[in-house]
Amino acid sequence: MLTESGTTRLFTSDAPLTMSNGATLGPVDVAWERYGELAPDRSNVVFICHALTGDAHAAGLREGDTKPGWWDSIIGPGKPIDTDRFHVICANLLGGCRGTTGPASVDPATGESYGLTFPEIHVADYVNVHRALMKEFGIERLAAVVGGSMGGMQALHWGLRHPEELRSIAVIAASSRLTAQNIAFSAVARAAIMRDPGFHDGRYLELGDQPSMGLSIARMMAHITYLSEEGMAEKFGRRFQEGDAKHGFGVDFAVESYLEYQGRTFLNRFDALTYLYLTRSMDYFDPFADADAAHMMAELQIPALVVSFDSDWRFDTGHSRRIVRELEQARVPVSFREISCPWGHDSFLLSDPDYHATVRAFLQGVQYV
Amino acid sequence: MLTESGTTRLFTSDAPLTMSNGATLGPVDVAWERYGELAPDRSNVVFICHALTGDAHAAGLREGDTKPGWWDSIIGPGKPIDTDRFHVICANLLGGCRGTTGPASVDPATGESYGLTFPEIHVADYVNVHRALMKEFGIERLAAVVGGSMGGMQALHWGLRHPEELRSIAVIAASSRLTAQNIAFSAVARAAIMRDPGFHDGRYLELGDQPSMGLSIARMMAHITYLSEEGMAEKFGRRFQEGDAKHGFGVDFAVESYLEYQGRTFLNRFDALTYLYLTRSMDYFDPFADADAAHMMAELQIPALVVSFDSDWRFDTGHSRRIVRELEQARVPVSFREISCPWGHDSFLLSDPDYHATVRAFLQGVQYV
Repeated sequence: MLTESGTTRLFTSDAPLTMSNGATLGPVDVAWERYGELAPDRSNVVFICHALTGDAHAAGLREGDTKPGWWDSIIGPGKPIDTDRFHVICANLLGGCRGTTGPASVDPATGESYGLTFPEIHVADYVNVHRALMKEFGIERLAAVVGGSMGGMQALHWGLRHPEELRSIAVIAASSRLTAQNIAFSAVARAAIMRDPGFHDGRYLELGDQPSMGLSIARMMAHITYLSEEGMAEKFGRRFQEGDAKHGFGVDFAVESYLEYQGRTFLNRFDALTYLYLTRSMDYFDPFADADAAHMMAELQIPALVVSFDSDWRFDTGHSRRIVRELEQARVPVSFREISCPWGHDSFLLSDPDYHATVRAFLQGVQYV
Repeated sequence: MLTESGTTRLFTSDAPLTMSNGATLGPVDVAWERYGELAPDRSNVVFICHALTGDAHAAGLREGDTKPGWWDSIIGPGKPIDTDRFHVICANLLGGCRGTTGPASVDPATGESYGLTFPEIHVADYVNVHRALMKEFGIERLAAVVGGSMGGMQALHWGLRHPEELRSIAVIAASSRLTAQNIAFSAVARAAIMRDPGFHDGRYLELGDQPSMGLSIARMMAHITYLSEEGMAEKFGRRFQEGDAKHGFGVDFAVESYLEYQGRTFLNRFDALTYLYLTRSMDYFDPFADADAAHMMAELQIPALVVSFDSDWRFDTGHSRRIVRELEQARVPVSFREISCPWGHDSFLLSDPDYHATVRAFLQGVQYV
């Protein structure tokens, strides 16, 4: 199903990206994948924004892989984001560690990785890089921008600030403004990473080290917030990993084994600096602080789908309701659905029938020709 | 108000404590405090069981202290646990690090701290040491055993297993069986401690080191679970610590400053090994796994007060309802109250009027003479 993949240099040292905080950055390379046929008039493009730990590999099984892309459940031939109809593009976001330039990349000015000298990233910067990629591909207007969790924040920002570049947005399990508790979880995760002696003030790559402990602790804690309490009870309960209690302080309960595995495998595919930069960008995201934020989207009557899950306690339905209120107040056409699904925040990655039917119907209704 | 405080040796190397897992331990010293007058017939004693990070200093202001004991809000002259009427005793529990023998104590067999050679502790062991202390004090029957959170587990265990030694129990914001999510949070906290290079496989005391990073991360994460999301929003919201956003990865939001402070100050008063042992004892606590657990308490018709707080998501009301169901099924007289209070699990330490009135009324009704 994968049509094409690649890495494209969008900005150079001579023609750098200007970031939200005024800093410039170049070169900027972006890793991307494309699925399905592009219509001759290029009108059938759906852009997928990924979440905190995602990457460009959203769908399909690549040669040598044992698992398909992270959103293969919803993207593919005949699936809700239907590659028989849409040309689907996903890119690793700015600051990422999966092919796109990020703090672990080499700074040409020093010959060493950026580390903490990488400029602060805002959600606007992810979107500006995605926009530059679309320009590079000659795509003037997207049929839809779709994202879950932090991906939903990007879809929302894109819709609010650049509505002329798209025809619809789908904002799933996302937030327009983190709560104190949301920030608190990320703050503890960052503290675990930065206080790890392996962090070396962000210079661990040159030193051949890694804040493995901090990053795995961050990931384990995050996984607790991705699953609902009831989902965890259903999945693990108080079961022991090996039949009987072993006692001691090692892995004994099945839920401990799950977290330990998640923490360990994360180290092979993710970078600690990326974790810092991306979580921090969410803390500061607050598009409706500008009371007039949605007026351009309203003028163009760009429809938005907003989806939440009733068991999601990372970004509970209150977060989605707030987005809906802000958009409706500005007269943006909004379709809102709270899906009943027991799997917490992770539900957006799963195949709940109501959820999938909702996304399918919304995209079928998008006027893009 | 403090009547007396001290440390008592309850077990020795020659006459050791036999623990739940069969291990023996001696000497065992216990730090305690007493408030209010003991009635001549010793019938007016209320024993207070403390929670994970508490100690024997439950009430009153000791010389040189700037803050009163951890439950001073509820214990004192004229307060719900009324020292004009009751003789109140609190002791640091077994495994603690506040005067009572624990894994940081010196093992006489080696001359070094126990570390991870300290035997596994069950809730039954805390209670057995408290019972030995009461025996030492010549107190045959308690008017009440009262505890919040892990203290409530001890009160429950004492009531179920040794109902002849008491006349009532009050089990506040507690659980009779942790959920997968509860265990998960503790598992991540323990991983942070044990993976800290300063942990040295539990031998950090001899080496003059400490797993400071892991212990502070554990504490910060725990604090998120002690406050409700709404309580955190009310207390901190998205306020910045210094008026304006500073950006970067340091403390910027007020909630970050709060967590950082909690994590840092905890290091001065708590031991990482104690954190491991005490959290693990909660994971395995499951008294009603024995279907007949409450029959002795029912036979003696020992009344139980069970209190939960509607905003508590560490041990939500479902945990308390389960305790109530189990006790009622066995025909134990139970009074259950869910208190509406926005401050999450921490509510049990605060002065909500309904909560205090409930505890006061229950203790006033206890027949102890």
